[in-house]
Amino acid sequence: MDSSLTITACSVVDLRFPTSEEAHGSDAMHTDPDYSAAYVKLSTSCDGLAGYGLTFTLGRGTDLCVSAIELLAEKVVGKTLASLVETFGQTAQSIANDSQLRWLGPEKGVVHLAAAALLNAIWDLWARVENKPLWKLVSDLPAEQLVDCVDFRYLGNALTKQDALEILATNDSTRADRESELHTTGFPAYTTSAGWLGYSDDLIRKLCRQALSEGWEHFKLKVGADLEDDIRRAAIIREEIGPNRKLMVDANQRWEVAEAIEWVRQLSRFDLWWVEEPTSPDDVVGHAEIAKAIAPIGVATGEQCQNRVIFKQLLQLNAISFCQIDSCRLGSVNEILGVLLMAKKFNVPVCPHAGGVGLCEYVNHLIMIDYIRIGASLDNRVAEYVDHLHSHFVHPVVVRSGHYMPPTNAGYSAEIHQASIEQYSYPQGSEWQLRLAANA
Amino acid sequence: MDSSLTITACSVVDLRFPTSEEAHGSDAMHTDPDYSAAYVKLSTSCDGLAGYGLTFTLGRGTDLCVSAIELLAEKVVGKTLASLVETFGQTAQSIANDSQLRWLGPEKGVVHLAAAALLNAIWDLWARVENKPLWKLVSDLPAEQLVDCVDFRYLGNALTKQDALEILATNDSTRADRESELHTTGFPAYTTSAGWLGYSDDLIRKLCRQALSEGWEHFKLKVGADLEDDIRRAAIIREEIGPNRKLMVDANQRWEVAEAIEWVRQLSRFDLWWVEEPTSPDDVVGHAEIAKAIAPIGVATGEQCQNRVIFKQLLQLNAISFCQIDSCRLGSVNEILGVLLMAKKFNVPVCPHAGGVGLCEYVNHLIMIDYIRIGASLDNRVAEYVDHLHSHFVHPVVVRSGHYMPPTNAGYSAEIHQASIEQYSYPQGSEWQLRLAANA
Repeated sequence: MDSSLTITACSVVDLRFPTSEEAHGSDAMHTDPDYSAAYVKLSTSCDGLAGYGLTFTLGRGTDLCVSAIELLAEKVVGKTLASLVETFGQTAQSIANDSQLRWLGPEKGVVHLAAAALLNAIWDLWARVENKPLWKLVSDLPAEQLVDCVDFRYLGNALTKQDALEILATNDSTRADRESELHTTGFPAYTTSAGWLGYSDDLIRKLCRQALSEGWEHFKLKVGADLEDDIRRAAIIREEIGPNRKLMVDANQRWEVAEAIEWVRQLSRFDLWWVEEPTSPDDVVGHAEIAKAIAPIGVATGEQCQNRVIFKQLLQLNAISFCQIDSCRLGSVNEILGVLLMAKKFNVPVCPHAGGVGLCEYVNHLIMIDYIRIGASLDNRVAEYVDHLHSHFVHPVVVRSGHYMPPTNAGYSAEIHQASIEQYSYPQGSEWQLRLAANA
Repeated sequence: MDSSLTITACSVVDLRFPTSEEAHGSDAMHTDPDYSAAYVKLSTSCDGLAGYGLTFTLGRGTDLCVSAIELLAEKVVGKTLASLVETFGQTAQSIANDSQLRWLGPEKGVVHLAAAALLNAIWDLWARVENKPLWKLVSDLPAEQLVDCVDFRYLGNALTKQDALEILATNDSTRADRESELHTTGFPAYTTSAGWLGYSDDLIRKLCRQALSEGWEHFKLKVGADLEDDIRRAAIIREEIGPNRKLMVDANQRWEVAEAIEWVRQLSRFDLWWVEEPTSPDDVVGHAEIAKAIAPIGVATGEQCQNRVIFKQLLQLNAISFCQIDSCRLGSVNEILGVLLMAKKFNVPVCPHAGGVGLCEYVNHLIMIDYIRIGASLDNRVAEYVDHLHSHFVHPVVVRSGHYMPPTNAGYSAEIHQASIEQYSYPQGSEWQLRLAANA
């Protein structure tokens, strides 16, 4: 790496897609999501070379993330890339723990989402400089260097640096085989496209058939608003997919602990593989209680788990059977690596959350890293895939026969077409100007 | 109440006090706090009648809270006060769970701090309309109405509405006695003014003597940066205060779990009453591990515990001996009442966090409510008090002989003098303009 390469500027865009108009992504708690992103560009001293990163949001409040990124940018602008990634774990900790901003978290909410976007852009830049896809950059790192990218703070009673090195060492001799396997067959995905809460029964049936014809093996239904509706819709999906494919349900935090246990009991006749987000994402103890009561149906959660400390406890209390990291809620690859390593140590499969905008593009890299270096298994692993908004990306995710294929472009795949930015930036983009004029 | 009284506008100010210049409030994680607030005024259809609320911050990022409050204000402006407080628990839930903004939390970080500020202003307005101090308004509410102010979501496996009604009923016959006792002797306070991390040994000794002469009985020392320093400073304070007064230490989240246990063992010779924030505020399981290891020294935490779900788990796992609610981090009185009720059910004393700017003014009301209606005991109860920035308030807190005295003004005491706003609003206030000019 050219050690003088310097980050010279950080610009941030508020991008919003009007997805709520078609009920895409609707669930029991999020009735009108406009999939959005605070989108970062880090310019550098090398003309034409930039790093791109984003954090995912649901519309209102994207501007808060934009402002928070602008505040955090002063920790990055003027620094060399080499100095930032040399002790990348410490860099991540310092960005996520500004001495004044941390009161607004710490390491959660708007400020942590902002830290993630900024760190994502640094990872992208690093991978571009090395001319590798992000997953390949990380997969090729020497073990010590990979571990130095992790922020281990508060993980000491669950995962030490020595534990991490041992996990990497155990997988070392076989990692080349897994990498070639990924090039051939990819990493298994599942689709949520069929089961959104706002969809009609007929649309669910139609989307199921379409997904079956495309080779999907796992199907997820949004539940939790009304039990009779859920039973009817689960019956439709189970009828369409037959007895052998996997059916998961997702309550999006709708239930109290006891309610979750009872509701799942009512739906268990449809042979559920997992129950996702049964209650508050903050309730580790509650998830443990639910997990014990509904076994062998597994509990899955993570898309709104704020940081590694919550994941640590979910693992310590055997509260989850599936660990659903979110690529933008956790503080970028630095924090994600720590969670992947903990999940491996506790023998819990990682099945990332995706969808939204850009999450599939990110997750595509993370599952490759996990399979090659850390989790090193496909057992009970499946990554979410939603077929929305990929066309806005310069290097959109590639899914073949229900499998994520390894990205081949250099970087972390978050770069968005300039035309999309001009259309969807909020409120000045052309799509929003049209809507604002129509409502005026 | 005049049922037509309507909230007509919400204005928000970014107020910052340059406290970092004198190391006030410095600790192991927050090295340069500028005590700040996002300050809300709700104007009404009644000329001259307004509600005032705030959330406390540390400087940078106060603007994020201001923007978030402005986004949430649309749920309040144009509504009648009567409609908002009639089912106040539901109102609080709907403000804290906007269907798009909740992705940025949920119920944590910037958006939850903003919800707190807005709800604090509604409570202030309600108390002003009833012409009562907030504590008196709540203390006089019929039990059913008080309980309807609570947001019980996710508390079901720890506290039901029935539990809450039973707690209130048990205390009912004796509440008038406790209220008159408060008028006479107040609620016990402790001071952190002596033990900030940035202070010299000589200053600590001098401040100890001053605090002793003012009648204080509890002393708190900030620790966690360097063990030898901590031992030396704890020895100074113990020497000054003698063997019978209480000494607490506060690590401000500095430690890993095992490190906390070992560090506290080294300090235990100074007869500690509690250890505050030994590790991550998110680590319920870690706090439980520490609590078990260091007993009979108690674990105290809460000032950075994001919401009622974290407090629920701290109580369920016996992780805390002292419950330190923060008046601005929790979603106003609505969420605080739920935590007070849970703490009572689990028999853990509530010792609120205060200091900063406005926190003492708020806490003054909350301890009165807890003593009169909920906790109903002074055993092991003591509320933090820091003698900073009170002069900016129209109705500053009154402390006599180390006790908080009941506020007598109508409202929730957050109203700030117009002159202070003109001086300290950021960046246009006169104090900041001076500094910006000096740095230019």
